[in-house]
Amino acid sequence: MLGLLRPVQCLRRPHASYPVAQRPVTLPMQRGETSLVLVDEARRFIQDCLLRMSVPASKVRSISEFLVVADYRGNFGHGLNRLDMYLGDLRSGHARADTDPRIISETVATAHVDGNSALGVLVGDFCIDLAVQKAQKAGIGFVVAKKSHHFGMASWYAFRAAVRGLAGLVMSNAVPTMTSPDSQETSIGANCLSFCVRGNRSNFVLDMSASVRDLGAVEWAWSAGEYIPHGWAADESGFSTCFPNLALRSLRLYPAGGHKGYVLSSLIDLFCGVLSNAQYAGRIAQGMDESSNLGQVFIAINPEFFVPDFKERLDDFCGRIKGSEPAQEDRPVKLPGEPEREHMNYVEKLRALPYSNAVLAKYKRVAERLCVRPIDLAFERCQVKRSF
Amino acid sequence: MLGLLRPVQCLRRPHASYPVAQRPVTLPMQRGETSLVLVDEARRFIQDCLLRMSVPASKVRSISEFLVVADYRGNFGHGLNRLDMYLGDLRSGHARADTDPRIISETVATAHVDGNSALGVLVGDFCIDLAVQKAQKAGIGFVVAKKSHHFGMASWYAFRAAVRGLAGLVMSNAVPTMTSPDSQETSIGANCLSFCVRGNRSNFVLDMSASVRDLGAVEWAWSAGEYIPHGWAADESGFSTCFPNLALRSLRLYPAGGHKGYVLSSLIDLFCGVLSNAQYAGRIAQGMDESSNLGQVFIAINPEFFVPDFKERLDDFCGRIKGSEPAQEDRPVKLPGEPEREHMNYVEKLRALPYSNAVLAKYKRVAERLCVRPIDLAFERCQVKRSF
Repeated sequence: MLGLLRPVQCLRRPHASYPVAQRPVTLPMQRGETSLVLVDEARRFIQDCLLRMSVPASKVRSISEFLVVADYRGNFGHGLNRLDMYLGDLRSGHARADTDPRIISETVATAHVDGNSALGVLVGDFCIDLAVQKAQKAGIGFVVAKKSHHFGMASWYAFRAAVRGLAGLVMSNAVPTMTSPDSQETSIGANCLSFCVRGNRSNFVLDMSASVRDLGAVEWAWSAGEYIPHGWAADESGFSTCFPNLALRSLRLYPAGGHKGYVLSSLIDLFCGVLSNAQYAGRIAQGMDESSNLGQVFIAINPEFFVPDFKERLDDFCGRIKGSEPAQEDRPVKLPGEPEREHMNYVEKLRALPYSNAVLAKYKRVAERLCVRPIDLAFERCQVKRSF
Repeated sequence: MLGLLRPVQCLRRPHASYPVAQRPVTLPMQRGETSLVLVDEARRFIQDCLLRMSVPASKVRSISEFLVVADYRGNFGHGLNRLDMYLGDLRSGHARADTDPRIISETVATAHVDGNSALGVLVGDFCIDLAVQKAQKAGIGFVVAKKSHHFGMASWYAFRAAVRGLAGLVMSNAVPTMTSPDSQETSIGANCLSFCVRGNRSNFVLDMSASVRDLGAVEWAWSAGEYIPHGWAADESGFSTCFPNLALRSLRLYPAGGHKGYVLSSLIDLFCGVLSNAQYAGRIAQGMDESSNLGQVFIAINPEFFVPDFKERLDDFCGRIKGSEPAQEDRPVKLPGEPEREHMNYVEKLRALPYSNAVLAKYKRVAERLCVRPIDLAFERCQVKRSF
């Protein structure tokens, strides 16, 4: 997917000395403490770690691809950043790689799946493929999974339906990290929703959480030593904070659009948690003492059952949104998925993935613990190659 | 639904002289220029008007009930307020009451429906009933309608699925009235989404538009002579305005949660407009020169196919949200649908519906034009009864 990647020089730019309030939220590669890692090297490291945790070789490739693609799309919260959480859950048995999801009950258009506490990506791939099969016959496939695990970047699954010519809609509930505008308490997860469909010339790739920003973005800011903008999260006193460590301690993300984000998250939890027989809202385990038992919903819809020229209509729809007059001339209106596409182009230009040095230092410790070769930086490898 | 209604005294409270910026957004009955109308009288007036427009008697009852229930729930933008729009569209032929929707194609779980430009409520009732039928057999019913009309309060249809023990999810696209955060242009509708499901002790009734507030709320403020809060809509220069007349002229509502509201609205339009073969985004007619050809999606899901104790789980879920510690002690956390439930209780206590005098004056003119008996105010009727 990433094409041939050649080693390039490590990108380092000293951080501009903005006052805290004006410090810009930029792409990670624009931040100071960032190093480049070749994609193959990131994939190699992830695979080595997973093999050390006795994950079957047949599953290692799909898990590593799934994590690398998240970083490739600029969704750093759900990429390499999540590997140590998955390794920890595999070690403690809260997530398993030796089990497979199974169908509890099904109709021609629906299925109820028991994830068997398998890693989220294994459950997700199984369910979206099942939904696609059903949609190809019945027009729609609606698959609900219980006993699942954190499934990372939701658009991974929606895209899996889209490449087969269908529309994919995927939702998951999550550990409670979001507060209602009327409450002091973290009562629901910053649940996510992804929708993906492809036209002839344009893609519509929506991947959003119901909160202003998801926890991965706060974690990323923390590991990169950055502040977060006010309005993302509250501290333990209930006031908005710009310190990611306080936000991570309180786990009180703000919903996007106030009550509307909150009820949207509740709706997702109703489908994913209540309907699936998984855990929901405050019943989802916060700690590390039990399996998360998350619930997820995977929907595939076959546009051919409704309109023959769907792709042309989608291209026209996307063109109309993109073509609307921008508020600032130099900032054209973007479709959902375009910032990620830009990040992918940027990575392809760099020919490597930019990781924060704090994340790389964390994985140096992980490598030592698991006795696997640490991540080589692209710059270092470049030097090595030059010496031949 | 409303029980026996006895005439009561007209509620009039002089408007408090707040400064503009602090003027509160209150329930309509708390506003100054409001008069009470008995529910049967509102229903009688709507039915008289519809009969004058040659709407078949068999359809008049469901249309009038649908409008009255919107007012009963406090959704005044979609109640009596919309009658003159429907009458205008019936007169011009943009909406019809003499046609019925028909199924273009279907599978065991899906259907594509041609609304035949029938009034939105007639298309909506047909489609949600069809979705319920399919869900009872296949677990899910997914019905997509084209050539539909403005269908009013979306929760009317979702509730129709809920009373049969299913979960109902309904979406509609709309005339473009919303602007992207990056654009100067109104490029998409403030599309709506409603979800309704019933437990043993609690209901979850979500009905929201993707904008901060919908156009009906702005219209209501305008007809009641109120200001709107900043952040609802922009004027023609692109700046936030508190004047509803400027907001109605520019038709630039702000999306809830910035980009997230905008992409949610795009997602709804993709399902309702692009997938259904109806119009979408800027292709939906703004003016009165052609039928709107709106698209709508009706989904019914049968929880019994997934989990046997769904109602108990829903009650527990709702209890957890309601039970979370409130930010202000005197303002408990509310579930979606609770403010509407409170309004219904309030109306039942008043035993009549509170309408703005501006709206009542408009319908006095409509009554004269159509030669039907104007709306009697509850207070006046009370006087009349006393004179016997």
